[in-house]
Amino acid sequence: MTVTIIGLGLIGGSLALSLRQHGLAQHLIGVEANSSHAHRAQELGLVDAIETDLTAAVRRADLVVVAVPMDAMLAVLPAVLDAVGPQQVVIDVGSTKRALLAAVAEHPRRSRFVAAHPMAGTEYSGPDAAVQGLFENKTVVLCDTECSDPDAVLLVERLFRELRMRLLHLDAAAHDLHTAYVSHISHLSSFALALTVLEKEKEEQRIFDLAGGGFQSTVRLAKSAPATWVPIFRQNRLNVLDVLDEHLHQLQHLRELLVREDYDGLAAQIQQANYIRKMLP
Amino acid sequence: MTVTIIGLGLIGGSLALSLRQHGLAQHLIGVEANSSHAHRAQELGLVDAIETDLTAAVRRADLVVVAVPMDAMLAVLPAVLDAVGPQQVVIDVGSTKRALLAAVAEHPRRSRFVAAHPMAGTEYSGPDAAVQGLFENKTVVLCDTECSDPDAVLLVERLFRELRMRLLHLDAAAHDLHTAYVSHISHLSSFALALTVLEKEKEEQRIFDLAGGGFQSTVRLAKSAPATWVPIFRQNRLNVLDVLDEHLHQLQHLRELLVREDYDGLAAQIQQANYIRKMLP
Repeated sequence: MTVTIIGLGLIGGSLALSLRQHGLAQHLIGVEANSSHAHRAQELGLVDAIETDLTAAVRRADLVVVAVPMDAMLAVLPAVLDAVGPQQVVIDVGSTKRALLAAVAEHPRRSRFVAAHPMAGTEYSGPDAAVQGLFENKTVVLCDTECSDPDAVLLVERLFRELRMRLLHLDAAAHDLHTAYVSHISHLSSFALALTVLEKEKEEQRIFDLAGGGFQSTVRLAKSAPATWVPIFRQNRLNVLDVLDEHLHQLQHLRELLVREDYDGLAAQIQQANYIRKMLP
Repeated sequence: MTVTIIGLGLIGGSLALSLRQHGLAQHLIGVEANSSHAHRAQELGLVDAIETDLTAAVRRADLVVVAVPMDAMLAVLPAVLDAVGPQQVVIDVGSTKRALLAAVAEHPRRSRFVAAHPMAGTEYSGPDAAVQGLFENKTVVLCDTECSDPDAVLLVERLFRELRMRLLHLDAAAHDLHTAYVSHISHLSSFALALTVLEKEKEEQRIFDLAGGGFQSTVRLAKSAPATWVPIFRQNRLNVLDVLDEHLHQLQHLRELLVREDYDGLAAQIQQANYIRKMLP
């Protein structure tokens, strides 16, 4: 099948690699607004051809993947649906769903679209961030599939299963709620941690010298690009604020225990936090 | 040389493995208060012999490593120094230094002790957590070495260099300040994040399904044991509170930007956080 991927960054580029590796795409067409990224994607062999005309690129595809940041997504997805016929299938790979699904709810080709969110990524972006095997053994969330044609859903389910992903069906509201809890707050926490250390630790060499694996692990996501994350926080603002308030509350509680020198209380909280072991490999 | 390691957990056990692998210890004696850990350490071959009498174990060693949690450390290190002669060398591997160095400042054998903190670890504990190669390419901080005999410092420096560690000399106060910034706050942040998600996400299966690499990375340290971390927070309380207040301030600032829908301001903060890239590999 011919696949057109719009947006050749970390996710779009990695998906191109995976689709080719698994023999799911015989011809890959790329559309990329950033011309140096487009050039680089071709150099890296992520796609067979770059197409600058969105409509032409969409018309030639059996499957269209929209993998642009969430702000651009709100404009690009409707334009893609304007161009598709009744046999083609469109997916997104975006991190928020309510605003996006609202934006295409009344589109005459809505049923050719399947909303997808592969729960995979790294802190890097752009075509050079594309990596083989990014999606393997990860979860992909499919949202509001009752609004999509059954043949489109089947094709998308088959495709992600071939990439060895676990399928999870959620409605858009549940998706945005749960991803705020389990993904978006991690990024806010990591950004704040990096800002904290950059503010307090004025000796850069000390950060370099003393940063062990623990620090690197908690601050890794702080390398993530604002162009990716600001639109996500914007579109999922109320859920993110809700979980952020809980996070502030938990930190303030730990602080109070330390101020009061209540070390038994602190140990009890850490023991409670340890319960996360049961949910993570 | 004969090395006695007191405390056969993650750090003591990993050091036993490294000393043996690099041919630095011909005979390894272990002292371990937890009898099932002692048994397990022998099963795993971490040490050649377990000794229950601390004084006897110390007297037989050329080098004594004290690798117990920081609360026990304050009692065990003076007891070890009570037993050593003028040719033996003692090191600790603890995460805080001011309280410990104050506790032995007037000890007649103070100069046989070299305060060391290898900046390496994982979220696991106990002898089963011991791993080969934990210290390679990491930094080890040596504190207040002017209070130690030159021959003891030389031996310890040579030993850590053979383990391929980078040496860094800091006074105890500077050590405790910088580790609060670059290590201790990461643990508090991760504990609070785990508590947040456990509080908000009532569906445990959802955490399991949706936890991508990003979440796992930020919450990994929340698996760490209270027995290790409460004494560290206790002994470094003022530095930890200071950096925690800055972290709360940074989180509250991100929150305000989101409340006000100041997305340019949010992007600027994330861009500032991205600066951490330059300090981390």
